[in-house]
Amino acid sequence: MFGVKHMKWWGWGVEGVGFHHEDKPRFAPFVKEKVGLDLSEPGTAAPGFDEIDVPESLLPDELAAALARAVGDKHVITEDLDRVVHTFGKSVRDLVRLRRNQLKRVPDAVVYPGDESQVSAVMQAVLDADAVLIPFGGGSNIAGSLEPLTGETRPVVSMDMGRMNRVLDLDTEAGLARIQAGALGPALEEQLNRRGWTLGHFPDSFTHSTLGGWVATRSSGMQSDKYGDIADITRGLRMVTRTESENGPGVDTVVLRPLPSTSTGPSVREMILGSEGRLGVITEVTVNVHQLPEERVVLAWFFPDFERGLKAMQDISQSEVNVLVARCSDHRETAFSFATQKKQKGVKKLVTDGLFKMLERRGWDLDKMCMAFIGFEGSKSHVTHQKSLVKDIVGKYDGVFVGKGPGQMYDQKKFDTPYLRDFLLDRGATADVSETAVPYSQIKELYDNTITAAEEAMTEAGVPGYIMCHLSHNYHSGACLYFTFAVVEKPEEQLQAYDMVKRAVQQSFIDNGGTLSHHHGVGMEHSPWMEQDVSPAGSGMIDSLFDAVDPGKNLNPGKVTHTGEPGVSDLSDW
Amino acid sequence: MFGVKHMKWWGWGVEGVGFHHEDKPRFAPFVKEKVGLDLSEPGTAAPGFDEIDVPESLLPDELAAALARAVGDKHVITEDLDRVVHTFGKSVRDLVRLRRNQLKRVPDAVVYPGDESQVSAVMQAVLDADAVLIPFGGGSNIAGSLEPLTGETRPVVSMDMGRMNRVLDLDTEAGLARIQAGALGPALEEQLNRRGWTLGHFPDSFTHSTLGGWVATRSSGMQSDKYGDIADITRGLRMVTRTESENGPGVDTVVLRPLPSTSTGPSVREMILGSEGRLGVITEVTVNVHQLPEERVVLAWFFPDFERGLKAMQDISQSEVNVLVARCSDHRETAFSFATQKKQKGVKKLVTDGLFKMLERRGWDLDKMCMAFIGFEGSKSHVTHQKSLVKDIVGKYDGVFVGKGPGQMYDQKKFDTPYLRDFLLDRGATADVSETAVPYSQIKELYDNTITAAEEAMTEAGVPGYIMCHLSHNYHSGACLYFTFAVVEKPEEQLQAYDMVKRAVQQSFIDNGGTLSHHHGVGMEHSPWMEQDVSPAGSGMIDSLFDAVDPGKNLNPGKVTHTGEPGVSDLSDW
Repeated sequence: MFGVKHMKWWGWGVEGVGFHHEDKPRFAPFVKEKVGLDLSEPGTAAPGFDEIDVPESLLPDELAAALARAVGDKHVITEDLDRVVHTFGKSVRDLVRLRRNQLKRVPDAVVYPGDESQVSAVMQAVLDADAVLIPFGGGSNIAGSLEPLTGETRPVVSMDMGRMNRVLDLDTEAGLARIQAGALGPALEEQLNRRGWTLGHFPDSFTHSTLGGWVATRSSGMQSDKYGDIADITRGLRMVTRTESENGPGVDTVVLRPLPSTSTGPSVREMILGSEGRLGVITEVTVNVHQLPEERVVLAWFFPDFERGLKAMQDISQSEVNVLVARCSDHRETAFSFATQKKQKGVKKLVTDGLFKMLERRGWDLDKMCMAFIGFEGSKSHVTHQKSLVKDIVGKYDGVFVGKGPGQMYDQKKFDTPYLRDFLLDRGATADVSETAVPYSQIKELYDNTITAAEEAMTEAGVPGYIMCHLSHNYHSGACLYFTFAVVEKPEEQLQAYDMVKRAVQQSFIDNGGTLSHHHGVGMEHSPWMEQDVSPAGSGMIDSLFDAVDPGKNLNPGKVTHTGEPGVSDLSDW
Repeated sequence: MFGVKHMKWWGWGVEGVGFHHEDKPRFAPFVKEKVGLDLSEPGTAAPGFDEIDVPESLLPDELAAALARAVGDKHVITEDLDRVVHTFGKSVRDLVRLRRNQLKRVPDAVVYPGDESQVSAVMQAVLDADAVLIPFGGGSNIAGSLEPLTGETRPVVSMDMGRMNRVLDLDTEAGLARIQAGALGPALEEQLNRRGWTLGHFPDSFTHSTLGGWVATRSSGMQSDKYGDIADITRGLRMVTRTESENGPGVDTVVLRPLPSTSTGPSVREMILGSEGRLGVITEVTVNVHQLPEERVVLAWFFPDFERGLKAMQDISQSEVNVLVARCSDHRETAFSFATQKKQKGVKKLVTDGLFKMLERRGWDLDKMCMAFIGFEGSKSHVTHQKSLVKDIVGKYDGVFVGKGPGQMYDQKKFDTPYLRDFLLDRGATADVSETAVPYSQIKELYDNTITAAEEAMTEAGVPGYIMCHLSHNYHSGACLYFTFAVVEKPEEQLQAYDMVKRAVQQSFIDNGGTLSHHHGVGMEHSPWMEQDVSPAGSGMIDSLFDAVDPGKNLNPGKVTHTGEPGVSDLSDW
């Protein structure tokens, strides 16, 4: 579509690419042992697009004409496939609804603006028609931030930002780049890399998410320990927003110049960050960029248990060390990682076997063993110095160095994990992720209680399941814990057990001092926990802001906070 | 007042302490040369309090009774001195208005709540009476954030937070401290230091400003390169705010738990930061704290000119070095520093004279010379390593190391500078400060153009004046430039020339890519530039938020954005 590529309409990533385990001999036995799923049985593929019932477009002629005037005829699409692609993100609920042919409300049109003036013209047309506007970046959202409300009776327009994908300006003196909001990760990195620079922002969704989407949902990349969250990286931005006058709604542009810091009252930048389309459409972002490093290396260590791994991560983060990334898996995720490794042969196998034997002789319980990755980046001397500092800290917690191999594999595989969900859905298992951030003083308790809560939910639901976790994204006072879980459910019951586990995990986050989401946003899937997270008065302040800017609720209504449709965020209500 | 100490009603700091130059032989000649002021003539002291006409308190009996019920009889003060102390902050406009006996609107009562429930009760009483509530921390504000609007016809209550000054909790595992908002800098540092910890936040106002005030105005301390701005330091907070119901206005508390990071929509934390009382009263803040460092040292270097000094600061900031502070004065401020030095004798004098001769032999123009301070903190090995990295960078820009002496002096004197303003006002000269933050790519141009704009304004005003500058507070993409300027005006014309210079400086900030204030806030003195800084649509978003939370404009109205009183922020209108 005019060079704008979309993911599969029914699942993650590129057509023709999927998870497979033929070269991973330990994967099927692992899954069989943990959740009783027999992967030798054939899966049920997602339905064909012709099996899907797509509600007809309700686009009024007058609005259609106005949109065509705004972006040009050929950039207003009302075809079913494109409308379905723009109905959801890629959350488990989204994927299951598609597989079950449950499309309640689909955008009536998809528009592809080419510049900010076209974004403004589209918004004006939408407001004039009292329609709904939903901005769409890469479509990778997993929090329910993209879907029209099921009961929406007004026309719904999805605005795909994919044509606005250029690096507009690179200020090498200040280390700032001005980039259009629709640029996908690879596109913007390629444009920056060509000139020797990098944004350094690599969320798991990197290949299929955009700068505008990262800002709108408060994304964080796996190298945030060095580069910061997108909230830190974002310095200036432009957003087309709504205004009110006696002549009715109009549009204007918020322009925030790139400033290293400022004391100009409540932060408009930090209102737009995380606004998920409710305040307008982000058109362009000025971000901190860095020169490509001389050296980059991700090293791996084993720890005898997760407690010591967590302590090592905390110690690194609170020390004088600067790392690129510090990430530690619990023993469950470590076991999962081993199960997804390709078959080892020859010397490599001998070395691995020898290492495990050595650890056992040292008294390690290999079932409790945890793997950690710690990355370094910068000049050669910087990397050498930081590595030596980390070595001292890791040693205090009985960490055993296992070289570069696992880190290289992690680097290669890191963007492929989401493909696994579709593979499991084909086989009647639902996998999802939930992440939080929590002070270090509560991190072990949150971890223990969340694992327990999830396992109790699985027991209560009466289905086999698995949950695992890693720590990543370190800060002065705490870190992110990232949980991945799967439950086995018969298709006709699908998501009842999932819902129970998801709820248990989210509630445990809140009950143990964590936030409802560290970097996936709120959307409609997390909004039930907003009042518990930021307090009713805090949530009320966000609501006040949304209502004041968009009194007609035309801008992506229903996201982040409940607004007049109680229960719409209920996971069981779709 | 119940252990709550206030600054002099007419000026900065503690009674009995003031600037003097008897031991600084070069100061009077410097002032004479630069602005023609003869310091041997006696100054005109500020008036006595009995010479001041204080408007009568208009506190209605019913509100008085409700306030007494809220905080106890003895914590509701309507005496003139306390009311005057709470009328202004300590900006030049504030000091001059007091000296000229121009008190248009003075709070009708000052209340001293002892805990959050009393804050809530006071706010409820104020809202029930349709009165105005202005929170007051240390009273050091220099942006006009504390004064009642001159045309305010409703009762005005100033809420002094001074009794709420305790560190409530120290979480040594996460490095977090929960502290009451009314704690002054020295009080909270003392409570933390006793247990081996520090907040590390040292603004120039440190001795007379509070944690709540820092948060409400987006403060930054001189060690922000290591510890961050208060916006980074603040993790959790509590704020008593207003709610609306069919029964009229009520109160509720925003509770933000301390989180290392989160993606919960627009940031409520970042709405409260910088809100200057317009959204409510901050009662408690949870902040990042750090263990006291093993070593701390501030070293000084000379650079042949400001351009090279700026480049060195930028290079340090964009390198892999971690410093505590990196600060460089221009040649004007360097000359001023020399003029405020005590008389050197013996060996010290010989060394200094020798150094200057050596630099002249190297071809330096001593009139262009700039002094820089670079501070280091942490373990001994960290400090040693960082010092060696900095040495390499500074060498590239012809920096000459001048030891620890100037840094020690800077550390000792850093909180005393504001006393100089009162000394100069006694002698018919008005001195003020304005700071901005700007990307490095525009920093030299902003500096040059601001100096030029200020000097042209002085010429146009027909008065002698002086302006000087330093860089401090470094970020990835830019830094803060901090300007100090003085003009000589006859008392009867006072502030006309000042206004012209202040306006020229502020406008130059905006016109050259800088912000209206890096860490002094907006208040009423900077609000005329808000729309230019964050764009009209951005300013409108802030306004929308204020109006939605406080539709009656009872909470410190008129600050940050213009709200219905055009011209009130005009510097000439008082």
